[in-house]
Amino acid sequence: MKTYEIAVIPGDGIGNEVVPAALQVLRTLADVHGGLNFKFTSFPWNCDYYMANGKMMPDDGIDILKGFQAVFLGAIGDPKRVPDHISLWGLLIKIRREFEQSINIRPAAYFKGLESPLKHTKNFDLMVVRENSEGEYSEIGGRIHKGEDQLAIQNAIFSRRATERAMDYAFKLAQSRRGHVTSATKSNGIVHTMPFWDEVFEDVSKKYPDVQTAAYHIDALSAFFVTRPEIFDVVVSSNLFGDILSELGAAIMGSIGIAPAANINTKGNYPSMFEPVHGSAPDIYGRGIANPIAQIWTAKMMLDHFGDTDIAQKLLDILQDVTAEGVKTPDIGGRATTQEVTEAICNKLKDLA
Amino acid sequence: MKTYEIAVIPGDGIGNEVVPAALQVLRTLADVHGGLNFKFTSFPWNCDYYMANGKMMPDDGIDILKGFQAVFLGAIGDPKRVPDHISLWGLLIKIRREFEQSINIRPAAYFKGLESPLKHTKNFDLMVVRENSEGEYSEIGGRIHKGEDQLAIQNAIFSRRATERAMDYAFKLAQSRRGHVTSATKSNGIVHTMPFWDEVFEDVSKKYPDVQTAAYHIDALSAFFVTRPEIFDVVVSSNLFGDILSELGAAIMGSIGIAPAANINTKGNYPSMFEPVHGSAPDIYGRGIANPIAQIWTAKMMLDHFGDTDIAQKLLDILQDVTAEGVKTPDIGGRATTQEVTEAICNKLKDLA
Ligand SMILES: CC(C)[C@H](C(=O)O)[C@@H](O)C(=O)O
Ligand SMILES: CC(C)[C@H](C(=O)O)[C@@H](O)C(=O)O
Repeated sequence: MKTYEIAVIPGDGIGNEVVPAALQVLRTLADVHGGLNFKFTSFPWNCDYYMANGKMMPDDGIDILKGFQAVFLGAIGDPKRVPDHISLWGLLIKIRREFEQSINIRPAAYFKGLESPLKHTKNFDLMVVRENSEGEYSEIGGRIHKGEDQLAIQNAIFSRRATERAMDYAFKLAQSRRGHVTSATKSNGIVHTMPFWDEVFEDVSKKYPDVQTAAYHIDALSAFFVTRPEIFDVVVSSNLFGDILSELGAAIMGSIGIAPAANINTKGNYPSMFEPVHGSAPDIYGRGIANPIAQIWTAKMMLDHFGDTDIAQKLLDILQDVTAEGVKTPDIGGRATTQEVTEAICNKLKDLA
Repeated sequence: MKTYEIAVIPGDGIGNEVVPAALQVLRTLADVHGGLNFKFTSFPWNCDYYMANGKMMPDDGIDILKGFQAVFLGAIGDPKRVPDHISLWGLLIKIRREFEQSINIRPAAYFKGLESPLKHTKNFDLMVVRENSEGEYSEIGGRIHKGEDQLAIQNAIFSRRATERAMDYAFKLAQSRRGHVTSATKSNGIVHTMPFWDEVFEDVSKKYPDVQTAAYHIDALSAFFVTRPEIFDVVVSSNLFGDILSELGAAIMGSIGIAPAANINTKGNYPSMFEPVHGSAPDIYGRGIANPIAQIWTAKMMLDHFGDTDIAQKLLDILQDVTAEGVKTPDIGGRATTQEVTEAICNKLKDLA
């Protein structure tokens, strides 16, 4: 019997609705599937915590989380009370960095029962592999002067090590999929880092002669996500470009309410973190109608990470079956509550037993 | 009788097919419309020129162009022979910078006769106002170390002056449209420049109490271009974000082959430049099937810039009529050649006379 020790951070807003839903699903899954067990420990770190304590997590927060096998996070952010760059850099991005979660992966694929905004929902099935530790998301930079002379400078930092790591991950992933990697570049507009990105991509691709490659500028690539998403298998990108592409991926699936994500520590020295793509959605919080699919799909990615890929795949199939049967929340055209969707999923899991 | 002196740079690839098409349309327009006259002077600056001379334009190229009222450009780039960052920074971006073309504007709107990839083509009609002189497109940065320690650094530079200028332009434009400006930000991920961008947006918006505002992070905003483009009127953005958004705008219209752009010098001290969004498309060059709509719509934006807005609007209507009648190139589902489309447009212009 395996027991996974998981740190749970519901966070803000609907995180507090969809995380309990996902835990209910994981508990049911453990019940029906003899070999699995979860131990969840919850941490109330969010914008409320910040309002009370002036920080997003205790000083030893990172130390506390170190002992777990994974961090399972809901959503962070409540911009009316705490500026995003404080709440996110104080918790979400801090965990990504401190735990060397250098890769962020986000699938986008045709999802049964969801209506895509695209006319021709070809059977697309892609994975965005995003460099998650540096790039455009850096704390280096600042401001100078006041008034009309004011200047703000932001340094984007690309290291060969981190760039190679993301690309190696992408190529290996492609080997287990359809054998194709697309590089998201902008070497025609961004003079220093993107030609560097291209060179590293060239170099890394030589190590994987069995994998085919393509490279598009981020502007064209974004357009292709809309006009022909079926051409992509694995898309490797910088931190910012991956952020944009994965949200576009969610949009073409039919909803950002269902897209999951994993922040992977590739070395295995710290826990990885699993969090959906959507935010805390303060506008709908408290009404019991938040879509739990993204958070549950995120749990599925956590199972994959643990190596429990069979049961993970069954869970994803169930998510699609339930959605296709019309048990869905209002954001995707249904009338079910968070709880009703969750129970429909749990019932199908029980049927597996 | 007004005579406009226009510098023409067809550039690379299909630029050499669509620019002549657009000039034919402008000449026809001058014939049927008594008060207008054009004097075109063509310059062969492109990647061929680079191969022969080691530079994209002569040393006094900028001086030569100064004397014209506008630059009318096709497309630049032939990456198999000249790396993009050389060809573009040596010509396209050089002209944008030297002539202080600090704003780039790009419309995206429902276009009659074009099939959008979106299921519900609501009547969207938006304009991306892109800061065009700084931001993520800067020459500041470089590399250090070799091998696995190699680092590339790119500085994104945001000045209050240029940021305000783009925003002022956007707000004024909104006043002449539907009175709404959306700011493209990423202040939750990009620590230094994007919170600055938000502050300037706050400040500038106070000067325009009659204009309504919204702000979204670029990831969500890109998704909204796909899921609900009809919510946007004017979208103001940094250089990079505007690049991505305007290409997405072209994609949801139904083709990047039709999207136009204008690089505006707001001070009037140097010529503005008009160039379509699409590139040089070396893959289809020489077959006579390049879509001339973007280049002709770009000419329409040039007429707007000169103040000839009535005839400009008539030209845009004709572009849509011809497309709706099915006279269109293969990229948008037709079977016409560049020349056939151009002639259909000229014939309708003659009917106006
Ligand atoms: C060619 C390239 C440098 C350019 C840009 O990114 O500005 C193009 O994509 C555009 O949008 O005009
Ligand atoms: C909240 C924000 C900082 C974050 C990011 O851009 O990384 C989010 O958009 C995401 O994609 O996880």
